[in-house]
Amino acid sequence: METVLSSATRELRIGGDNPFCVIGERINPTGRKIFQEQLRRGDLSRIEIDVADQVPGGAMMLDVNMGAPLADEAELMTSAVTLIQSRCDLPLCLDSSIIEVLEAGLAAYQGKALVNSVTAEDERLDAILPLVKRHGAAVIALPNDEEEIPEEPSRRLDLARKIVDVATGKYGIAIEDIVFDPLAMPVGAGTSLVLRTLETIALLREEFGVNMTLGASNVSFGMPDRGSIGAAFLPMAITTGLTSAIMDARSAQLVQAVKAADLLTNRDPWGAGWIAAHRARQAAAAAAQANAAAQ
Amino acid sequence: METVLSSATRELRIGGDNPFCVIGERINPTGRKIFQEQLRRGDLSRIEIDVADQVPGGAMMLDVNMGAPLADEAELMTSAVTLIQSRCDLPLCLDSSIIEVLEAGLAAYQGKALVNSVTAEDERLDAILPLVKRHGAAVIALPNDEEEIPEEPSRRLDLARKIVDVATGKYGIAIEDIVFDPLAMPVGAGTSLVLRTLETIALLREEFGVNMTLGASNVSFGMPDRGSIGAAFLPMAITTGLTSAIMDARSAQLVQAVKAADLLTNRDPWGAGWIAAHRARQAAAAAAQANAAAQ
Repeated sequence: METVLSSATRELRIGGDNPFCVIGERINPTGRKIFQEQLRRGDLSRIEIDVADQVPGGAMMLDVNMGAPLADEAELMTSAVTLIQSRCDLPLCLDSSIIEVLEAGLAAYQGKALVNSVTAEDERLDAILPLVKRHGAAVIALPNDEEEIPEEPSRRLDLARKIVDVATGKYGIAIEDIVFDPLAMPVGAGTSLVLRTLETIALLREEFGVNMTLGASNVSFGMPDRGSIGAAFLPMAITTGLTSAIMDARSAQLVQAVKAADLLTNRDPWGAGWIAAHRARQAAAAAAQANAAAQ
Repeated sequence: METVLSSATRELRIGGDNPFCVIGERINPTGRKIFQEQLRRGDLSRIEIDVADQVPGGAMMLDVNMGAPLADEAELMTSAVTLIQSRCDLPLCLDSSIIEVLEAGLAAYQGKALVNSVTAEDERLDAILPLVKRHGAAVIALPNDEEEIPEEPSRRLDLARKIVDVATGKYGIAIEDIVFDPLAMPVGAGTSLVLRTLETIALLREEFGVNMTLGASNVSFGMPDRGSIGAAFLPMAITTGLTSAIMDARSAQLVQAVKAADLLTNRDPWGAGWIAAHRARQAAAAAAQANAAAQ
């Protein structure tokens, strides 16, 4: 099953035989005090740096979250979407818990966006899905509701089934436009939690064959050597059926792990991408060395 | 299912809730000309270095292969086993295609060894399995026969079934003393071959619940940036059911990938091993820095 997204000029396909989709997580003020302060002043210059940092590293889509305290999030989302689309041609993932912010982002967006996110809560479903349908967008769906973020994979599957039923039945959204988030929990909060996530991925793949994404950085939260944890987790999740992640696209270690998993799961025909990336790194290293020698 | 191996003084359990078993591949003259020449002269000093290189890195068992051209392999195996067991307390994996060499190694070995390996060929089964039974050893089993190394996972499963039937039925070897090798092929020889290996692992787990090992370095053979390929492959194979690998235990990248997979699959309770290893690296780095500053 393929989920097709686009910017004004570029199409991106998630799933099927396509490479794993790296969604850059960086444009998000959570935990970034200076960036929050800049956004409150209406200064979006940091976003341009974040775009420039993520695109060469391997981001194939960018998550955009403007949730800075005391700022006008809807206005910021409109400005950010317009700015980012003028700087790069990657499709965007519009990330907010506020309906009006998603609406503002969708109104400004050129192309088919990914809305982040809806849950299985009735109120959220009935507010967000009509918006997704009206703008011809796709949506990330989280299998939790007002009562719980369930730990049991079978319960997550039940909530996913509810979302599929409402989205396809009530709102006429195609199932390929629902990208499930199987809920990735920090391994530091419980060393069996990641197995629950992997089981959920397997269940969702088996039951619906849908595309999936998750916040990969969550898994290593609070643990030392987070890069190595992420670089092991992503190939594990890809083996189980994950087709995308919101992750640190600036990390060579994480992007390499994803590209290696593409190679090993036959999503990089003849290894051409792997070999070309190696040669590009070699050429860059040689150029840097020649440059240093010339100084 | 647990496979229990031992040296004279130490027990090692593979499978179940135990950590993934790292088997050091290094004591093997294949492709090492100087080592081959030393072995032909009866000089075993390099083995001591290989032991010292692998044990601190994280090897939990050592593979011992003395297949140097024109050398008396049986005599070398006897000497090597005795030497290695005097230098470390890890269980050993006795690796040879020659029956007499395996016999010599088993005769010299103190503890319960892992014999590497038997295939589904009748002649091999009837030569090696009685030896394994007589010495109370365990054995690595490869699902190929005289006709083929099958690519199809279902055919590999058929050959595995034959080995299980002969080993348990005819020779009274316990199934937990058979460690299957699902056959890891180079991804450079065909980008769908690793998926066949992963499918075989899943089938063997489902059908027999057995422990499995493989030569992890095979997968990246001929490709650039082999470390990153191995560091993605091992977590993928572990997710599918692999419980051990013969691998480069000197590579921090590979060992970290395995330890991260242990953490993520709940085989490192409370992440205690992960955190302790991080602190040990920090302490070593601080000591090295203090040392450098004092010079």
